[in-house]
Amino acid sequence: MFKGRFPYLKRMGADEEKKLKQKIFDIVFEADTPYGKLFDISLLLLILLSVGLVMLESIPAINARHHTVLVSLEWILTFLFTIEYLLRIYCVKNRWRYIFSFYGVIDLLSILPFYLGLVLPTSKYLASIRILRLLRIFRIFNLTRFTRGKNVLVLGLKESKDKIIVFLSFVLLIVVVIGSIMYMVEHDHPESGFTSIPISIYWAIVTLTTVGYGDISPVTGLGQFLASVVMIIGYGVIAVPTSIVTMEMNKAAKHKEDIPTNTQRCRNCGDDYHLDGAIYCKTCGHLLNEP
Amino acid sequence: MFKGRFPYLKRMGADEEKKLKQKIFDIVFEADTPYGKLFDISLLLLILLSVGLVMLESIPAINARHHTVLVSLEWILTFLFTIEYLLRIYCVKNRWRYIFSFYGVIDLLSILPFYLGLVLPTSKYLASIRILRLLRIFRIFNLTRFTRGKNVLVLGLKESKDKIIVFLSFVLLIVVVIGSIMYMVEHDHPESGFTSIPISIYWAIVTLTTVGYGDISPVTGLGQFLASVVMIIGYGVIAVPTSIVTMEMNKAAKHKEDIPTNTQRCRNCGDDYHLDGAIYCKTCGHLLNEP
Amino acid sequence: MFKGRFPYLKRMGADEEKKLKQKIFDIVFEADTPYGKLFDISLLLLILLSVGLVMLESIPAINARHHTVLVSLEWILTFLFTIEYLLRIYCVKNRWRYIFSFYGVIDLLSILPFYLGLVLPTSKYLASIRILRLLRIFRIFNLTRFTRGKNVLVLGLKESKDKIIVFLSFVLLIVVVIGSIMYMVEHDHPESGFTSIPISIYWAIVTLTTVGYGDISPVTGLGQFLASVVMIIGYGVIAVPTSIVTMEMNKAAKHKEDIPTNTQRCRNCGDDYHLDGAIYCKTCGHLLNEP
Amino acid sequence: MFKGRFPYLKRMGADEEKKLKQKIFDIVFEADTPYGKLFDISLLLLILLSVGLVMLESIPAINARHHTVLVSLEWILTFLFTIEYLLRIYCVKNRWRYIFSFYGVIDLLSILPFYLGLVLPTSKYLASIRILRLLRIFRIFNLTRFTRGKNVLVLGLKESKDKIIVFLSFVLLIVVVIGSIMYMVEHDHPESGFTSIPISIYWAIVTLTTVGYGDISPVTGLGQFLASVVMIIGYGVIAVPTSIVTMEMNKAAKHKEDIPTNTQRCRNCGDDYHLDGAIYCKTCGHLLNEP
Repeated sequence: MFKGRFPYLKRMGADEEKKLKQKIFDIVFEADTPYGKLFDISLLLLILLSVGLVMLESIPAINARHHTVLVSLEWILTFLFTIEYLLRIYCVKNRWRYIFSFYGVIDLLSILPFYLGLVLPTSKYLASIRILRLLRIFRIFNLTRFTRGKNVLVLGLKESKDKIIVFLSFVLLIVVVIGSIMYMVEHDHPESGFTSIPISIYWAIVTLTTVGYGDISPVTGLGQFLASVVMIIGYGVIAVPTSIVTMEMNKAAKHKEDIPTNTQRCRNCGDDYHLDGAIYCKTCGHLLNEP
Repeated sequence: MFKGRFPYLKRMGADEEKKLKQKIFDIVFEADTPYGKLFDISLLLLILLSVGLVMLESIPAINARHHTVLVSLEWILTFLFTIEYLLRIYCVKNRWRYIFSFYGVIDLLSILPFYLGLVLPTSKYLASIRILRLLRIFRIFNLTRFTRGKNVLVLGLKESKDKIIVFLSFVLLIVVVIGSIMYMVEHDHPESGFTSIPISIYWAIVTLTTVGYGDISPVTGLGQFLASVVMIIGYGVIAVPTSIVTMEMNKAAKHKEDIPTNTQRCRNCGDDYHLDGAIYCKTCGHLLNEP
Repeated sequence: MFKGRFPYLKRMGADEEKKLKQKIFDIVFEADTPYGKLFDISLLLLILLSVGLVMLESIPAINARHHTVLVSLEWILTFLFTIEYLLRIYCVKNRWRYIFSFYGVIDLLSILPFYLGLVLPTSKYLASIRILRLLRIFRIFNLTRFTRGKNVLVLGLKESKDKIIVFLSFVLLIVVVIGSIMYMVEHDHPESGFTSIPISIYWAIVTLTTVGYGDISPVTGLGQFLASVVMIIGYGVIAVPTSIVTMEMNKAAKHKEDIPTNTQRCRNCGDDYHLDGAIYCKTCGHLLNEP
Repeated sequence: MFKGRFPYLKRMGADEEKKLKQKIFDIVFEADTPYGKLFDISLLLLILLSVGLVMLESIPAINARHHTVLVSLEWILTFLFTIEYLLRIYCVKNRWRYIFSFYGVIDLLSILPFYLGLVLPTSKYLASIRILRLLRIFRIFNLTRFTRGKNVLVLGLKESKDKIIVFLSFVLLIVVVIGSIMYMVEHDHPESGFTSIPISIYWAIVTLTTVGYGDISPVTGLGQFLASVVMIIGYGVIAVPTSIVTMEMNKAAKHKEDIPTNTQRCRNCGDDYHLDGAIYCKTCGHLLNEP
């Protein structure tokens, strides 16, 4: 199906191509062959390097002196990542599934900002998103011990999704009401910083979450009294997510603790979290150990 | 009983009026007929729109350019909400109960600030309170799954009311004492901002809740030492509400988890949280499925 | 035993004096006779009034206009509290025990600062400590429901005393080390505010407790990196007291929940927390219902 | 084996030396003989004194006046600590094990900065690290009650190591991504303080941990919106370590509660935490009660 576009592939037989794809797949997706492991580790290091380069470029003093070197290296790395992305698309069986999977999107977002940067210079810094590719580290080193830790965390958060949505809705309603009232009280005192309702809502969030920058803070007696009430409410509010997460993580820990899993990856859809002894992919039903 | 005031209603028979009321009730209060659902969804959108308008008006740059449009739209929406409020009062059986119910008060507070705004301009921003009407969203979309989440939260908070009152009393006593001592220590250094005991109490709350704006902060050695003690105390203090809520939510979760409820609304008092199979309203004893 | 000092009491017989003491005791200490309740409620209101007066006096604008009125009222109230204190000493059986009890010390601290204020003007603001006398409110209104809430809180804190001391020791050691390192890193940049090790320790506490005023904050790259590490540590550190209190409150709740108590006060030592049906004081062994 | 270097020791027989070592060991390491206790208490006081001196020296006003006294005292104390360190090395059986043990490293770090201070003046303030030697206090006063409290804390943290590493990895990835996005949004407004990606990451940590100094804070509408999202995420994020620690401390408390331990110290490796009745050291297998 790629043949029309890559004519030199025509010379390969269907069988040869399948073998080649399998080989590439083993290297770029799997981490249980020596070459696969080498590839993954080099990739991790290159990702770290490229994120470091973007950071260095953002520091004015360093950028002024080494601009050319930094930008050249960034382009070389981006070029490598682009090839890698194309290889991944080439060798995976179900292409669209990979492209729209979590890692597929991250992989794309890792190279896109650079090309966009040619048109929109600032978008380049979005490339830092490629650091999320490091999440693959857990699979590469087969850190099931940690993956389990991750699963308890993720499961805890997933299970409490309903409660978290309800909680966030309440918080949003509260901050809109508080923000409006504070704007009403403080907007005659421009030195307080309550210059509009959206800004006041921003202040309410900063206060309720106990961050408290201090760039906006009430100056009238009434405003300070209301702010005190908000903070006291914040006491209770900050307790809710903690309670939710504690509860759900407790539940998740009980359920999850002794489920044995491994990181075998499905060749069809790319799902890499299966029970020990699984034969078919739990997500797409494809045979896992296809020869 | 409204007839004296609305003479044109006299022409309707008692039966016809009852039918009309029932029809209006089904539309404005219930969400299980197509018209009722349509009404509720339009209402939600209008509420969001009107809150958005009030916010935009508060931003000086935007208000300067579009003042007339914003204010006109706001008045149109307020007019619509006023009609809706009157309809609600008209069709509900037990009027006073609705008017003093949670949603009744919110509905009134959603339109009042605008009329008050004619006299007292700033009071208009209170209209943001109408965003609380969005709480109806849970009932409209029959999100029992979420309502259950809400119930665990609300029940958790309700059950721990006693402990929370005791806790808040302690906090209030502590901040008064701390505030007074800090005022004594710091009020000779006006740059620290401790200009009066109420301000110092405000500082104590800002510090104990770990918000920490920094607009007021001690400058003397003794003051900073005392502030450190306050913060260390704050460590323990902030732990208490979390513990309370965790404990009570655990209890609530156990009790509540499998109580089946629905959102049938009582035609008499408006209570909309009943057990499955309930025949009489749990709040006013009125028959629920009155034909 | 007071007779030598108050000669006019000599005219009373021992019996008459005992009766008088009993009467005064019932009024000033107990709250179950009409007079006792009236006395306690008036006292609460006077305390609130006097704290309010001290606060008002601290506000420069108000003090400038009403200084004489405020000070006169404060002196009248202090005089009344002094009489009350002497009456309490007079009618209680075991005087020293009362004087060194929690409430006895608070009662003394409520009047002392005013007399000290004649010599040392600022000490007067310490009088706000008298707001702690409001703690008696729980006993006066026989709020056993709340007292139980209080007991769970207090017991939870008491039980976890060991762990809290260990935790605080660790925190103190950590902040000294962090403070010294940050001073080393930042003290060449006076605009950062790290002017001495004690100030740096103060900063470490402000940061670890997530208060974060911002009056002192690192400006060098290394300093900001170290501060980030401190904050990440702070994440874990702030979790510890919450965990401790949650654990202990859970335990306390289990043990305490159904122990029936009342607020009968011992005439000898003043302890007012006994089990239902207690006959002897649990603290001093004195008969509780002495006729 | 030290004989070559300390020739005057040659005059002692092997037996005499062994006895001397034992004696010194009992004094400097153990705390159950009168001399041992006296030594340890004096040591604690000297450590406190020396840390206090370093702090005082860092305060410019005090240093200006008492520089000579402070520095002289510091050198005397450092000299004493150096002798003590050499004695510890001399009398312990397994030298390297002591030198690289936790306390061994702390003991060295307590004297090293002063000698380094001759070359690199600022390194002297690192000497505050010697306050960590106070951790020995638990062993000296045989505060097993507290040690148990400590063990529950430490065990709780140890057990949750996996989850904490996963959590910290997530936090690091999140702050890099957030920091980069915020830099992109805000770096055209230098007054906001987002001058480079590393600084923006610092801001992200300050915000996620709810510290919120306010030295860097967004000024654009989009930036403030994104910051609000970060804070709301921070709500959930701060809940995770609390949940983890609560969970693990619960477990640890269950397991640990009734394991009887003592503070017998192994003469070979210095480990001082053994079960009651232990005969061999659990770390190096050496006989504990060697005569």
